Amino acid sequence: MHEELKKLVCDANIELQKRNLVIYSWGNVSGIDRSAGIVAIKPSGVSYDQLTPDKIVLVDLAGKVVEGNLNPSSDTPTHLELYRSFKSIGGICHTHSTSATIWSQACREIPCLGTTHADYFYGPVPVTKSLTKKEIQSDYELNTGKAIVKRFAKIDPLQMQAVLIANHGPFTWGKSPAQAVESMVVLEEIATTALRTIVLQHKPMKVSQYLLDKHFFRKHGKNAYYGQKGK
Amino acid sequence: MHEELKKLVCDANIELQKRNLVIYSWGNVSGIDRSAGIVAIKPSGVSYDQLTPDKIVLVDLAGKVVEGNLNPSSDTPTHLELYRSFKSIGGICHTHSTSATIWSQACREIPCLGTTHADYFYGPVPVTKSLTKKEIQSDYELNTGKAIVKRFAKIDPLQMQAVLIANHGPFTWGKSPAQAVESMVVLEEIATTALRTIVLQHKPMKVSQYLLDKHFFRKHGKNAYYGQKGK
Amino acid sequence: MHEELKKLVCDANIELQKRNLVIYSWGNVSGIDRSAGIVAIKPSGVSYDQLTPDKIVLVDLAGKVVEGNLNPSSDTPTHLELYRSFKSIGGICHTHSTSATIWSQACREIPCLGTTHADYFYGPVPVTKSLTKKEIQSDYELNTGKAIVKRFAKIDPLQMQAVLIANHGPFTWGKSPAQAVESMVVLEEIATTALRTIVLQHKPMKVSQYLLDKHFFRKHGKNAYYGQKGK
Amino acid sequence: MHEELKKLVCDANIELQKRNLVIYSWGNVSGIDRSAGIVAIKPSGVSYDQLTPDKIVLVDLAGKVVEGNLNPSSDTPTHLELYRSFKSIGGICHTHSTSATIWSQACREIPCLGTTHADYFYGPVPVTKSLTKKEIQSDYELNTGKAIVKRFAKIDPLQMQAVLIANHGPFTWGKSPAQAVESMVVLEEIATTALRTIVLQHKPMKVSQYLLDKHFFRKHGKNAYYGQKGK
Repeated sequence: MHEELKKLVCDANIELQKRNLVIYSWGNVSGIDRSAGIVAIKPSGVSYDQLTPDKIVLVDLAGKVVEGNLNPSSDTPTHLELYRSFKSIGGICHTHSTSATIWSQACREIPCLGTTHADYFYGPVPVTKSLTKKEIQSDYELNTGKAIVKRFAKIDPLQMQAVLIANHGPFTWGKSPAQAVESMVVLEEIATTALRTIVLQHKPMKVSQYLLDKHFFRKHGKNAYYGQKGK
Repeated sequence: MHEELKKLVCDANIELQKRNLVIYSWGNVSGIDRSAGIVAIKPSGVSYDQLTPDKIVLVDLAGKVVEGNLNPSSDTPTHLELYRSFKSIGGICHTHSTSATIWSQACREIPCLGTTHADYFYGPVPVTKSLTKKEIQSDYELNTGKAIVKRFAKIDPLQMQAVLIANHGPFTWGKSPAQAVESMVVLEEIATTALRTIVLQHKPMKVSQYLLDKHFFRKHGKNAYYGQKGK
Repeated sequence: MHEELKKLVCDANIELQKRNLVIYSWGNVSGIDRSAGIVAIKPSGVSYDQLTPDKIVLVDLAGKVVEGNLNPSSDTPTHLELYRSFKSIGGICHTHSTSATIWSQACREIPCLGTTHADYFYGPVPVTKSLTKKEIQSDYELNTGKAIVKRFAKIDPLQMQAVLIANHGPFTWGKSPAQAVESMVVLEEIATTALRTIVLQHKPMKVSQYLLDKHFFRKHGKNAYYGQKGK
Repeated sequence: MHEELKKLVCDANIELQKRNLVIYSWGNVSGIDRSAGIVAIKPSGVSYDQLTPDKIVLVDLAGKVVEGNLNPSSDTPTHLELYRSFKSIGGICHTHSTSATIWSQACREIPCLGTTHADYFYGPVPVTKSLTKKEIQSDYELNTGKAIVKRFAKIDPLQMQAVLIANHGPFTWGKSPAQAVESMVVLEEIATTALRTIVLQHKPMKVSQYLLDKHFFRKHGKNAYYGQKGK
């Protein structure tokens, strides 16, 4: 069942290692079959070198394992909360990639300092509030998901495919598992350049609203003219 | 037609990836046949792994596609403005390479802090003015080219083969597509060392005019004695 | 004798190079057979490319060579002091890995600034006191071990599998030689992110005690639920 | 003639690229046959991929080419001045490696902040004075060598096998071409860690004289006990 989805999720997890976003088993990618309500996700603690599609675990949106002999990622409740709340997304990614983790540890949103950022993320990359003692001590991973959803009350998750968990690290997403990984690769790069821009220029100017609009919408939406659409 | 040029442009684009200056399809190189007035340029949104000479697009200096089934780079109008204004150049390169992008985002020129810089760039690497709202909202890519040309009113583009676009990233050029890429590789390195020199020494001394002259002209021009000229 | 242990120690040393933690012969890993009281350790000054299990040196806990034609690592007395004092550990690693060495040179403990740190190290990574002139001039390597043991008077070495030697570099350990190397890989990563978090945010907030507890104990101890235990 | 020396010098130059110390043709290594008074050096502007022993140029100590069809490195007069003044050395290396160049551009000596430094360099790595206008405009490369020699008036070049040229980059040396490259690899590493230690700790403590003595002399000189001497 869901062989195609398991293959896509497996490939997307392996891509994390190829892109130097993870060491050991420090990241996970999932994907969803919306019509069936089934999520495919990396098993917990398994290294990318040993990952094969048959090891990908299938769970329903309530978190019940429906296929697979291994435990799903311990972050599964976070993924599920995002799938339940963000109906437009098809894949989710979590890592502890170096530069995005630095911004998460600093509990600071990443301001939009250039067009590389504007090409992918429509505004500053938000950071969640720190979880309370109670939220950490029970249902921690579920509450992490709820903190993200709360932070996105007024944000379209397709215009902002990334978030920083305070004190922790990034989650990204997209229409597919592969796009979730691409969002993570780009987040890591803009996290690096933003950090070093601040080192060079203590308070760098944020890009103007019209430059942000120009770059985001020349790549996304119905008037986009980047790439080979319609060819 | 222009098979040789398309091959050179294709190779130069692929070199961007080998030199770790790009991810995904974040950079482009073009070359010009001056006698025919034909520019060969990377197609928009195509990854370097999939690039072959037959996918390179040919356009005339007014921007009309004269050969190729794919859309040319969305940055084509910038390239064409530079070819129309800088008659001595034969190739152009654009990337979002990490360190050069940091200086662009900080809207700061790169001062000449050492002989590595002086070996290639005759003085500080200039940064353009930020574009106005109007310049961004219509003919954005053309206006980017015009901002570069305006900044170079008193600069010889063969003595300064690089520029930083404010809030955006670098363009470089040279007598050929390969030289445009070499300028980009060197720009990235001197952008890295200049940033870190400032981190170490808040206000480092710029190199003297005579040290700049010595290093630039021992490698360039009629009295150059670096390399194997005349051998 | 102890062929299995020598193989594990050899592999763990070679892993240091694969993980970019060492150049030349700048690091060493050892392992212990507790029942026999025998320690297997890298020979001094031998490069990882040339290392084979038969070159691994066996010493007893008093430092006497019991097998092997080569000199053991000059850091052997430090390893032995740790094995004598920390009865629960089975492998030890020492490197001059870049970021951990920076914290050692700064003589600063690494504060726990995020969950990546909390996943592996239960609190700040401690730094030893600087050794006195007398401690340096005689039995230097033994005294280095004693400084570590003194610093760990109130710390469980299995909850904190790393230490920074003031002015020098890190030691890590674990239940096996391979785990000692894993501790070093993780230490290097959290040393990098902690340094850059401080660059971004002058005084970043440390993680709360409950977040530290949550992350450390979801991976370690009897209530751990990360990974595939019991599967 | 001198086939062995040309092979060693060729290999040492190629090692620069393997160790990521150079791009294009930005570095050079030489070696000397003291009995014959012959120096073998990299040809100018030739890339490491194309370098073979037969392209290595032989010059005498006065700078006259005695074998080879190519121009020797434009830095040859600097190398020769060092060979004439430092009788104990057998190989010299020059690069623009990133971190050592940063310290050169900042015109700052590298303080001894840890034992990694102390293992190789006996004290702070010195920086030359900036050359005067006159010294730059004629016999520039020879005057660079003289500035180094002047700076070493009271320093033993075998205890300090590296120097930073103000505004420029590093030179290193050793008893052989291979050792000159090893000095450069280590210099680059300690330049990186020293820079970042200062970022972390504005004024880090320098290592004590007795710690410097301990580490330098446990690896060098007649009482050294690191490695496999006598085995």
